[in-house]
Amino acid sequence: MSASNARVKQLRRLSRRSERSERRLFLAEGRNAVEAALAAGVVEELLLQPDRAHLLPDVPDDVPTTLVDERAMKALSDAVSPPGLLALCRFLDVPPAQALSGGCVVICAQVSEPGNAGTVIRTADAAGAGGVVLAGDSVDLYNPKTVRASAGSVFHLPVAVGIGVEDAVAAARAAGYQVLATEAAGDLDLFAADEVLARPTAWLLGNEAHGLDPAIAALADHRVSIPIYGAAESLNLSTAAAVCLYATARAQRG
Amino acid sequence: MSASNARVKQLRRLSRRSERSERRLFLAEGRNAVEAALAAGVVEELLLQPDRAHLLPDVPDDVPTTLVDERAMKALSDAVSPPGLLALCRFLDVPPAQALSGGCVVICAQVSEPGNAGTVIRTADAAGAGGVVLAGDSVDLYNPKTVRASAGSVFHLPVAVGIGVEDAVAAARAAGYQVLATEAAGDLDLFAADEVLARPTAWLLGNEAHGLDPAIAALADHRVSIPIYGAAESLNLSTAAAVCLYATARAQRG
Repeated sequence: MSASNARVKQLRRLSRRSERSERRLFLAEGRNAVEAALAAGVVEELLLQPDRAHLLPDVPDDVPTTLVDERAMKALSDAVSPPGLLALCRFLDVPPAQALSGGCVVICAQVSEPGNAGTVIRTADAAGAGGVVLAGDSVDLYNPKTVRASAGSVFHLPVAVGIGVEDAVAAARAAGYQVLATEAAGDLDLFAADEVLARPTAWLLGNEAHGLDPAIAALADHRVSIPIYGAAESLNLSTAAAVCLYATARAQRG
Repeated sequence: MSASNARVKQLRRLSRRSERSERRLFLAEGRNAVEAALAAGVVEELLLQPDRAHLLPDVPDDVPTTLVDERAMKALSDAVSPPGLLALCRFLDVPPAQALSGGCVVICAQVSEPGNAGTVIRTADAAGAGGVVLAGDSVDLYNPKTVRASAGSVFHLPVAVGIGVEDAVAAARAAGYQVLATEAAGDLDLFAADEVLARPTAWLLGNEAHGLDPAIAALADHRVSIPIYGAAESLNLSTAAAVCLYATARAQRG
């Protein structure tokens, strides 16, 4: 296929959230993401630049591979240097109850930067969390920057979307989780909270610029502070998530 | 000053690394960064959009404030939504020996993405590290994206630049630090290493895409693994730094 092909033009429209939502399809780029997508069984079709055939993993018989030229690949790619291998994938978000599993889960309230959402999903996966809920007006899970920043983890971890923050908190509590919010001046110090962290925990993370709405933070069982030892005011969203999730993993897994 | 002003054109050239290095000046944007820059005593001049006067902090008498119109501010700003307040700052990097202080320091080997470098500096500051060395072919400390991602921490923490990675490791060891490298298959598990972490520690962090060169990792006293409990292959650079630096702070500060 070349860039002028009608099919390429149609695929290119998947760069828009509205088009992705309507067709329930999105694109994932690069060998690692494609491998994870194949393992998750959500690939409709692979798109390959002929000179990148060495990137192609083992492909099941029922997944077609279409060759596209370099210009078409550039048109479809979100990357500065397109890897030359794309998977057209079916949506894989799950109902919230399914993302609420294991000893630790994450509820993102209004995360707005796609790279941050992807990094939080990757970090949750690494820390052994059972799932992630992108609640409220959070960024689209299927934004190419979210998918890329997750480094394959959108295909590993159950992720729920399209639920309000209050509803997500209620669902977590109904599923037996305590809800912990991060806050600069909380009632618990993260590093003096191992006994609390050992319980099934849903971490409620706020917006990268404005943090959590105080009314939302008030819904949590505890507001937890990450100790700040230097002159920085705070951590950014994904590093704060990493510190909280790994403190929880440590408390729960000894 | 308006956008066509010769002074604005001259300031605008500071978006280039070569120009910054030659004049040893850089720009920092927004109220928080400007406050931190003033507290650090490195501000040559403030640049203010007249309708943003409410952002202006207390300014010492010897720091002039120049009014610039909106178009000129846009030309000078690196931000999508320019805050309308800029500080022209003198370089503030320190000799490596000065960045090697306190119980914990960070040596970045070849960090290439400016946002990552800034986030690592912010995280090091929050975790109470004594300083950061951007070694080898690392990105420019004074890149506007580095300065912004640091959220003021480039003005709080001593940062050294312009030293090779091997020399930085040797300097850290001469200053009494053990050197720990992050590695997927290390000889120590981060969460079973409190006794080691309690010693003065220099963390050696690699490139975001390629990690640490094996020859560089071999220079470390220990190669430390962050436990990965899920299906993710790894953490990204800044979340890995957060987990390591906070584990160190916890071990050192109890």
